Amino acid sequence: MAQEINTLPASGTRDFLPHQVRQRERVFQIVRETFESFGFVPLQTPTFERLEILSGKYGDEGEKLIFKILKRGDKEQTGEADLALRYDLTVPALRAFADNRQQLPTVFKRYQIGQVWRADRPGKERFREFTQCDIDIYGSSSATADLEILLVINQTLRRLGLEKNIKIHLNSRLFLQQMTSAYELPPSTAAEIMIVLDKIDKIGLAQVAIQVSDIIQQNGLAKQCKQFLADIAGPNAKELFIAKVQANPEGKKVIADIAWLIEQVKHLQPGANIIFDPFLVRGISYYTGFIFEIFSPDSKSALSAGGRYDHLSMNVTGQSMPICGGSLGIERILLLLEKSWTDLDNNFDTLFLTVWDADSLPATLRLASGLRANGLKIYMSTIEKDLKSQLKFADKNKYRFCLILGPDEIKNQTLVVKDFVHKKQQILENKDHQLLTNGLLKFMK
Amino acid sequence: MAQEINTLPASGTRDFLPHQVRQRERVFQIVRETFESFGFVPLQTPTFERLEILSGKYGDEGEKLIFKILKRGDKEQTGEADLALRYDLTVPALRAFADNRQQLPTVFKRYQIGQVWRADRPGKERFREFTQCDIDIYGSSSATADLEILLVINQTLRRLGLEKNIKIHLNSRLFLQQMTSAYELPPSTAAEIMIVLDKIDKIGLAQVAIQVSDIIQQNGLAKQCKQFLADIAGPNAKELFIAKVQANPEGKKVIADIAWLIEQVKHLQPGANIIFDPFLVRGISYYTGFIFEIFSPDSKSALSAGGRYDHLSMNVTGQSMPICGGSLGIERILLLLEKSWTDLDNNFDTLFLTVWDADSLPATLRLASGLRANGLKIYMSTIEKDLKSQLKFADKNKYRFCLILGPDEIKNQTLVVKDFVHKKQQILENKDHQLLTNGLLKFMK
Repeated sequence: MAQEINTLPASGTRDFLPHQVRQRERVFQIVRETFESFGFVPLQTPTFERLEILSGKYGDEGEKLIFKILKRGDKEQTGEADLALRYDLTVPALRAFADNRQQLPTVFKRYQIGQVWRADRPGKERFREFTQCDIDIYGSSSATADLEILLVINQTLRRLGLEKNIKIHLNSRLFLQQMTSAYELPPSTAAEIMIVLDKIDKIGLAQVAIQVSDIIQQNGLAKQCKQFLADIAGPNAKELFIAKVQANPEGKKVIADIAWLIEQVKHLQPGANIIFDPFLVRGISYYTGFIFEIFSPDSKSALSAGGRYDHLSMNVTGQSMPICGGSLGIERILLLLEKSWTDLDNNFDTLFLTVWDADSLPATLRLASGLRANGLKIYMSTIEKDLKSQLKFADKNKYRFCLILGPDEIKNQTLVVKDFVHKKQQILENKDHQLLTNGLLKFMK
Repeated sequence: MAQEINTLPASGTRDFLPHQVRQRERVFQIVRETFESFGFVPLQTPTFERLEILSGKYGDEGEKLIFKILKRGDKEQTGEADLALRYDLTVPALRAFADNRQQLPTVFKRYQIGQVWRADRPGKERFREFTQCDIDIYGSSSATADLEILLVINQTLRRLGLEKNIKIHLNSRLFLQQMTSAYELPPSTAAEIMIVLDKIDKIGLAQVAIQVSDIIQQNGLAKQCKQFLADIAGPNAKELFIAKVQANPEGKKVIADIAWLIEQVKHLQPGANIIFDPFLVRGISYYTGFIFEIFSPDSKSALSAGGRYDHLSMNVTGQSMPICGGSLGIERILLLLEKSWTDLDNNFDTLFLTVWDADSLPATLRLASGLRANGLKIYMSTIEKDLKSQLKFADKNKYRFCLILGPDEIKNQTLVVKDFVHKKQQILENKDHQLLTNGLLKFMK
């Protein structure tokens, strides 16, 4: 009888069932609370933007992944698009800030948790609709702002119970600039080399040294960059890089700034595992100051990343503004947490209220109203079957606690509460809804 | 220097500034809590669906308002769409339920608060991106389910502080069927007449009678429908309709069912203003059982509406299922509430922590960490200007409470807290962060 209709969600998107919504919401709530404890406030932008706002912002590869919306009405025929789904939160937030500048603080601490859409090839743990979580300070060049970003992100990971094994890698685009000039690497070659340096976690130092050497040879710089080649080939490359940069006053200042951030994080968040990583690069064009990535041994990709990017605003809004910020890889974090948060897989917080028969319905409805008014969650049965079927339904659907109000209970002003997990039951007095609520809360503990 | 870049959001969409996000979230939170107190659980569906899921579900007018997404990659050239933004929550939720039937209860109490998109002409209070809020019971034909929907929606409006002037209009499609057959109105004419009846709030009873009379005359039914014409022309049309239906046993049963719902709502929610409105129609094809609309004198459109619709599931998923539910006009409700919830327009819940100078920065950072760990919201200044400028910034941006930790305070282990509203300040001891937190909370009261 049933027609064959494909009920799958669109490729790369997901339906979230109740326990999944609860898990996600619990994570988002902890993130929001932590962000707000640092004085950050929410800014929300629409799902789609005028196409021109997003075009030219994400490189050739990114451009291809933008979901575009067809023009409407008579113009649908043209096959042209004028709108596009949000590809990230960063660009729309800059547009929104510029558009509401008069109503927002000049130093604006904003966060956003929201979905973005990318027409990537869907795969395991790769979706076309996923949630991003950004936190930024607009309008401040202060090192304190950089520090606040590191602190708020690390504090959020701690609040989520992820503090144990995480490691914060810190560097600065300014350090990389100093290194480039100290070793006399020409800018274009330096850019190529940075891309290789950034791969150290994947390919290892030895392989990095080989690839870097190849680049230098190919560019005929073997002689000019002799020392760089020697330094990177050895096991102490990082230390040698730092020593090289440290040797000039400007470089010394950059290293001192990095050291200050590390010292403050360690001091204010005891136990924080934060290191200076001169090989961390995070893209060539975007960042202008400190950069960081946070890794966990349980996840291949970084749990969080960010830094200072003082030029992007000009590109998006035509107005210059210093910005630093970070992003939590919230989908990755959710994957790490979902195994440990199995308490949300059930309906143990809700009492399943059976309905004995039509005669007892009015008393059952009164009971439901009274208990709900006292803050309890009551699922009232609307299954027009006998008690046994209702209890079976409740057990199958992971309701742990069931209430039974039969003719005897109504007569005696009592109520039976059952616990499926511990296979026990109790008779409670049902005269006063507040006292009954207290009794039920005690039973549920 | 600044380039001219259009920073407006796309037509019909809105950026939400921090105080607006707070207002919206407060409403959503109350709605969620009330829904969950009735045992309803959240189900979330993606932003877009395969086009075929939405096509043919919303009538010709609705079809034109669907935002369609262009195919990607090589197929972008075709100008064809294969995906579409969610037009309502109802159809995608039915698809998602069908797709996850094995994991969900056979009687499923679900809710969803989510955005939908319609390419309507934008206007005052009409947006292309707006939030809908649906609550439904899937899989139950029980009158108790109908009652639960009325109760949960009315309770939510009460919790939102909107109980004072609201009026619940209740009817049933079954009553309208009984009336149609009792007056011997042919089905096609009856459908035309229903559309007119539904306009009574806008055009009044007298005008309804005239238009209905026209329809009957045009269809040559004046003789057959003589009594209907007489009844509707008088001032007691409603009472006469009810009496007519009451006269046969089936009709009597339908009226008794409506009366039971009204009686229970009044009994369980004392003060509820709920009436039987035989003129309420709410669309011809969609509903199959009880129907309701809830009005407020402060809003032109209904604050909520819904009813039983037992046939829609077959159309969407190919599988039949009884359903009853309702929807809150959440954007309208937000408009009603935003005037009264001005406490969210400011940052009075957050303490603005000034930074005296570079020397006092470490102590200031320690203070921020300590107070945040105790649950206070601390906005730490990252403005590298003098104290006066920082205080001016705080006042301008509606931070009511400011903390000052200068060299004297650091030496004396104290802290100054200022209240901009009451223009007072206090010196607190700053030795123990917990004691200090208590002192600050007391000051903020």
